[in-house]
Amino acid sequence: MPLPHVDVELRVRYGETDQMGIVYHAEYLAWCDMGRTEYIRRLGTSYASLEQAGTLLAVAEANLRYHAPARYDDMIRVETTLTDVRSRALTFDYLICHAASGSRLVTARTLMVVLDGNRRPVPLPREVRALLERIPEGALA
Amino acid sequence: MPLPHVDVELRVRYGETDQMGIVYHAEYLAWCDMGRTEYIRRLGTSYASLEQAGTLLAVAEANLRYHAPARYDDMIRVETTLTDVRSRALTFDYLICHAASGSRLVTARTLMVVLDGNRRPVPLPREVRALLERIPEGALA
Amino acid sequence: MPLPHVDVELRVRYGETDQMGIVYHAEYLAWCDMGRTEYIRRLGTSYASLEQAGTLLAVAEANLRYHAPARYDDMIRVETTLTDVRSRALTFDYLICHAASGSRLVTARTLMVVLDGNRRPVPLPREVRALLERIPEGALA
Amino acid sequence: MPLPHVDVELRVRYGETDQMGIVYHAEYLAWCDMGRTEYIRRLGTSYASLEQAGTLLAVAEANLRYHAPARYDDMIRVETTLTDVRSRALTFDYLICHAASGSRLVTARTLMVVLDGNRRPVPLPREVRALLERIPEGALA
Repeated sequence: MPLPHVDVELRVRYGETDQMGIVYHAEYLAWCDMGRTEYIRRLGTSYASLEQAGTLLAVAEANLRYHAPARYDDMIRVETTLTDVRSRALTFDYLICHAASGSRLVTARTLMVVLDGNRRPVPLPREVRALLERIPEGALA
Repeated sequence: MPLPHVDVELRVRYGETDQMGIVYHAEYLAWCDMGRTEYIRRLGTSYASLEQAGTLLAVAEANLRYHAPARYDDMIRVETTLTDVRSRALTFDYLICHAASGSRLVTARTLMVVLDGNRRPVPLPREVRALLERIPEGALA
Repeated sequence: MPLPHVDVELRVRYGETDQMGIVYHAEYLAWCDMGRTEYIRRLGTSYASLEQAGTLLAVAEANLRYHAPARYDDMIRVETTLTDVRSRALTFDYLICHAASGSRLVTARTLMVVLDGNRRPVPLPREVRALLERIPEGALA
Repeated sequence: MPLPHVDVELRVRYGETDQMGIVYHAEYLAWCDMGRTEYIRRLGTSYASLEQAGTLLAVAEANLRYHAPARYDDMIRVETTLTDVRSRALTFDYLICHAASGSRLVTARTLMVVLDGNRRPVPLPREVRALLERIPEGALA
């Protein structure tokens, strides 16, 4: 069974384009970040509240493959999946596509490490790990 | 006598352009910020150390006039002047121009308010005010 | 009678914050841009199609007042009003506020000049001016 | 013999930080882009002139590993190496480090594909390939 994913939609902003007439390649990392934010919210918490409680997720690796360009004013969907949970690291996968056609634009993966409020690597707090290992509420709806 | 200004140069990055083929208008605010950073460094301190000591400068107003566009790979000069020092606010003026020709691209002004480490408005610490009211070292050289 | 405004909502992205823990001041210009895009769409066209037809709107002046900071994950509303239409220039006003409370964060104004496909100043095409002078469809709904 | 690399230095901008107090992870891709720009300039041409002549390099893959964070006002060095030249694709490697200490912050690789002025994949023009296969002028100096 494929893992459930959580979706977020966005409209491409003018300032996200570059003089090639397409979205600048670095912008997709910010869209993946939006995807993670919504994934964690769907689990019943929020990344903002995790940070306030002293659990930070920092990007340790990022890998992106650019299949087709997004353009100004396009509606985009980011499909985010949590594909691996370790004691000190999480892996998220992303499919970025046109919202209407579903055509694939970018696929990406990020490895996140867990830091405490002093930016030191720590294991995931037990209650966060419990949360992450649930299937997101409504993700299969 | 015109006030001394402090200059910083930068080269336009590809991602700073938009699909109009010119620099996106919001990017100039980040260049003004670079100008302030260098202005404060020339006074003999650094904005990074001011923040660490609990004195923050937050932008309260920003005004920009766009005269001509900057383009990818252009060398740009930001000329920054501290034009007003009040007990709780500073005004900086900026002239952004082509480094080689000096032709004017953008003129801007920002009003900065002083915050403490808890983000509350405070008067400028006495020693910072003393520093700001000096003529920047070497600014007339 | 107050002019009708067109609203767009967005959620603050992590990368839009800075080390002060609030949204970086330059980001609000991009949010105003989103407001303009939705304003023009509500008129029954789109800025993307205006550009393709050779009518560009370039920012000639921007003025921002920062009243209170936006923070990561906040839901934000941008209320955009077209306050002046001249033959060669448009003025847009923006109120950026918290979506839920309506509390005011930033007020801004931009002056836009009209350019043709060769980036030369031109009068607004007659059909665009007609469009802009209508009350946006549904704006009073 | 290690391949020669071309270096460019930059100072971290305030707006490049996020509320974690470090540089936002997407910004490093823009720094790699600065590295490519300087690499191509050292070869005796410029990416700006390649684009004007109808040869575009688009990012097809990007891989980043984050070893340690950069902070506001740090001086950073980007060391760029062209590690592979194919008829239709180029691979660049990047080492991003503190300029003074040389301590490693981020390592990255991008795969670039060659497009013509109509954004269609094409082989590298013969004269560009000749240029790229030279050792950069002065890179070993």
